[in-house]
Amino acid sequence: MKPHSLLVDLYELTMAQAYFNYHKDTVATFDLFVRQLPAGRSFLLFAGTEDVVSYVKNLRFGLSDIAFLKRQQLFTPAFLRYLKDFKFRGDLWAMPEGTVFFAGEPVLRVTSSIIEGQILESNLLNTVNLATMIASKAVRVVLAAGNCGVFDFSLRRTHGQDAAIKAARSSYLAGFSGTSNVRAAQLYGIPAVGTMAHSFIMSFKSELHSFRAYSSIFPGRSILLVDTYDTRNGIKNAIYIGKELEKRGYRLLGIRLDSGDIASLARLARRMLDREGLTYVKIFASGNLDEFKITQILSKNAPVDNFGVGTKMGVSVDAPYLDVIYKISEVGSRQGKFLPTMKLSAGKVTYPGRKQVVRISDKKGRYLRDALVLEKERVAIGGKPLLEKVISRGCLCSAMPSLRTVRRYVQTQLARFPEALTYPRSRYTYPVVLSRELKRLMSYLQLHLSEHS
Amino acid sequence: MKPHSLLVDLYELTMAQAYFNYHKDTVATFDLFVRQLPAGRSFLLFAGTEDVVSYVKNLRFGLSDIAFLKRQQLFTPAFLRYLKDFKFRGDLWAMPEGTVFFAGEPVLRVTSSIIEGQILESNLLNTVNLATMIASKAVRVVLAAGNCGVFDFSLRRTHGQDAAIKAARSSYLAGFSGTSNVRAAQLYGIPAVGTMAHSFIMSFKSELHSFRAYSSIFPGRSILLVDTYDTRNGIKNAIYIGKELEKRGYRLLGIRLDSGDIASLARLARRMLDREGLTYVKIFASGNLDEFKITQILSKNAPVDNFGVGTKMGVSVDAPYLDVIYKISEVGSRQGKFLPTMKLSAGKVTYPGRKQVVRISDKKGRYLRDALVLEKERVAIGGKPLLEKVISRGCLCSAMPSLRTVRRYVQTQLARFPEALTYPRSRYTYPVVLSRELKRLMSYLQLHLSEHS
Repeated sequence: MKPHSLLVDLYELTMAQAYFNYHKDTVATFDLFVRQLPAGRSFLLFAGTEDVVSYVKNLRFGLSDIAFLKRQQLFTPAFLRYLKDFKFRGDLWAMPEGTVFFAGEPVLRVTSSIIEGQILESNLLNTVNLATMIASKAVRVVLAAGNCGVFDFSLRRTHGQDAAIKAARSSYLAGFSGTSNVRAAQLYGIPAVGTMAHSFIMSFKSELHSFRAYSSIFPGRSILLVDTYDTRNGIKNAIYIGKELEKRGYRLLGIRLDSGDIASLARLARRMLDREGLTYVKIFASGNLDEFKITQILSKNAPVDNFGVGTKMGVSVDAPYLDVIYKISEVGSRQGKFLPTMKLSAGKVTYPGRKQVVRISDKKGRYLRDALVLEKERVAIGGKPLLEKVISRGCLCSAMPSLRTVRRYVQTQLARFPEALTYPRSRYTYPVVLSRELKRLMSYLQLHLSEHS
Repeated sequence: MKPHSLLVDLYELTMAQAYFNYHKDTVATFDLFVRQLPAGRSFLLFAGTEDVVSYVKNLRFGLSDIAFLKRQQLFTPAFLRYLKDFKFRGDLWAMPEGTVFFAGEPVLRVTSSIIEGQILESNLLNTVNLATMIASKAVRVVLAAGNCGVFDFSLRRTHGQDAAIKAARSSYLAGFSGTSNVRAAQLYGIPAVGTMAHSFIMSFKSELHSFRAYSSIFPGRSILLVDTYDTRNGIKNAIYIGKELEKRGYRLLGIRLDSGDIASLARLARRMLDREGLTYVKIFASGNLDEFKITQILSKNAPVDNFGVGTKMGVSVDAPYLDVIYKISEVGSRQGKFLPTMKLSAGKVTYPGRKQVVRISDKKGRYLRDALVLEKERVAIGGKPLLEKVISRGCLCSAMPSLRTVRRYVQTQLARFPEALTYPRSRYTYPVVLSRELKRLMSYLQLHLSEHS
């Protein structure tokens, strides 16, 4: 779904009009960051660059859009002509997708004409909020599930269709193994998975009839849902079908538990299956799962092989939005000097200047801390800079990494953080420090900016 | 954004394949309903019919979709040919958009070939979940705001772009007065509104310079954001600009408060404005608002005229999903008798049979209770049936009502419910009863269906 150029807050355009009249040659840097981690979270997982880049590169205002804006009687003809020829010509820096990050760290940085930077705001916030929120929730589920597979079943309860597709992508990136969402599978090459619904079983004369019908069509790929009427009976029926399949030279892929006490039902199912020699049949669990419920199920030594996780991941139920903001950090003229700036509103202070985030490791490659530094002092401070230039003067710097590459990066990276960071109820605070120069700049501006009011 | 035909859970299609092989002539009825109201909610507001109807009418599988499905090696050539010619040929019943409804009441009812009904499931759930969740949250904000206007500012934090557009539509339907989302304004004819951002002010030499620049371009439509540096000073600067505008024959539209103690700042602003004769300048408040915060602000007699409400409405923060489900309620052959059916899983029992919801009023038109009845006993029971046929044998029965009509319907309807239903912290439970015939059918099926397992 290509974003529409008018999917923008009206004020971006009225401010752009004012910049056009008063600040046409002003260049500015904007930072996109999360002000505070959601309650109970120790880190976030960045996602969304691919969509951001596609939007920034392709943003144009068509004639019907211009005509609609004209009817608002807010904009001058000269500004509407400017929009007709609009093309982003600035620089965009971003953390690579799949990067673990923390509060206050810019994940995107835009340096461009102030008009261009302003117009991007609504879309950049919306895109990063969704992709990052889901990736950050999904990686918690992946960590909780340990060696079990996890599959995205969230399509029916995500906030619309865009969200469904992004939930599949972000969760796969975070380590999920597949999705039920066929469109996302098609778009991103994610493995598509599916079982059956209760209504399917109810439409047949009996559960056994429904199992037999399904498995005769998908003999090697059937996962039978066993809890429609009575779970123990359902398992018995699945075993019956498993043996029928064996006679035909196939293997029943799995059974699915979707209600009741999953841990004890999984143990029951495993015993019943094993007793009949169906040791290869996998147990899938689903139904209102999240990282906490999965941890609880596995803590009871439940022999579950795979989890289907839907709503609670797909809407990031404990943190259904991130505190993402997009703030100006420096202003300058096209030729002249850049002046750092910051916001002083009560409780909403921002970091000034053109900044980089560096991640500092020990000799074994374990991450020790991050530092928020001014770009000019970055080399002196050392560490790995996390922001990379992805668009330079309007052009893509290099191809985006594949989704599988990002997925691997997430896992190798997580292994380098202290393990305590990855617990579902982690209280670990990873250190993020401000450089001395940045602190000095902030003190200076706090003194001098209040004069501006 | 037209929904993609493959935006469907894989299992809908594998089940459809199995129905195609075994139940090609089976006709079924599916109910879409919310199993439980979210915690703290006394009612929901239905929305989504317009999108559902558009999807159901237009669903086709294109050649590239068929090719992708073929590559999954799950489907037979005959079934893929069936999909190529797919068109919904059944009936769809729906509550009118904007209808207040309660747990267990079907809001959509599909009667069609079981294959068609099954394929619709993912999209219908996704569409109704989003539109209804937002409308239900937004109407609470509207009720809390009383005579004040409320505007949708949620674009930057909704779950993607589809959600942003639907949030604007659903909130307008629920009684909001406008949106910041330009695309939604264009699509639905909703008034577009905008103010200015802190970054705009920070990009000028001083706050006063920024106010003057903005108001010189939009002299009759400026809402000045006064809290970037110091709110009292910001109000002074706005007054200064207001007087400049008066000299030019214009009126400052408003000021906006976005942080701090809104109630006391609004009182301060009102006093300062009135003292200078700027009694016509409106006060806008924004910043993390929801129905609870608005109630609190207004309970302190804060002279706020309009509220900008964003994230908490746009993600329905206290209930970021609804317990929407789609269940089969009867199965029959194309010629023969329909057999009601129901699900017996622990804690997930469903209502069988082809049902209607009737709303029963007293002589003054005040709503007394709803009853869930079997279609065949509806006339005898009386009351206003809430489900209306919108698609008959695949064709639209009549044009959809306009968004403004729906918006008016919401308000007139709410006035007929007990006032206690509409309080933000309502504990009122509106009575929804089951008809005697429905109860009898359930007892019968509970006895006999367990044999099916």
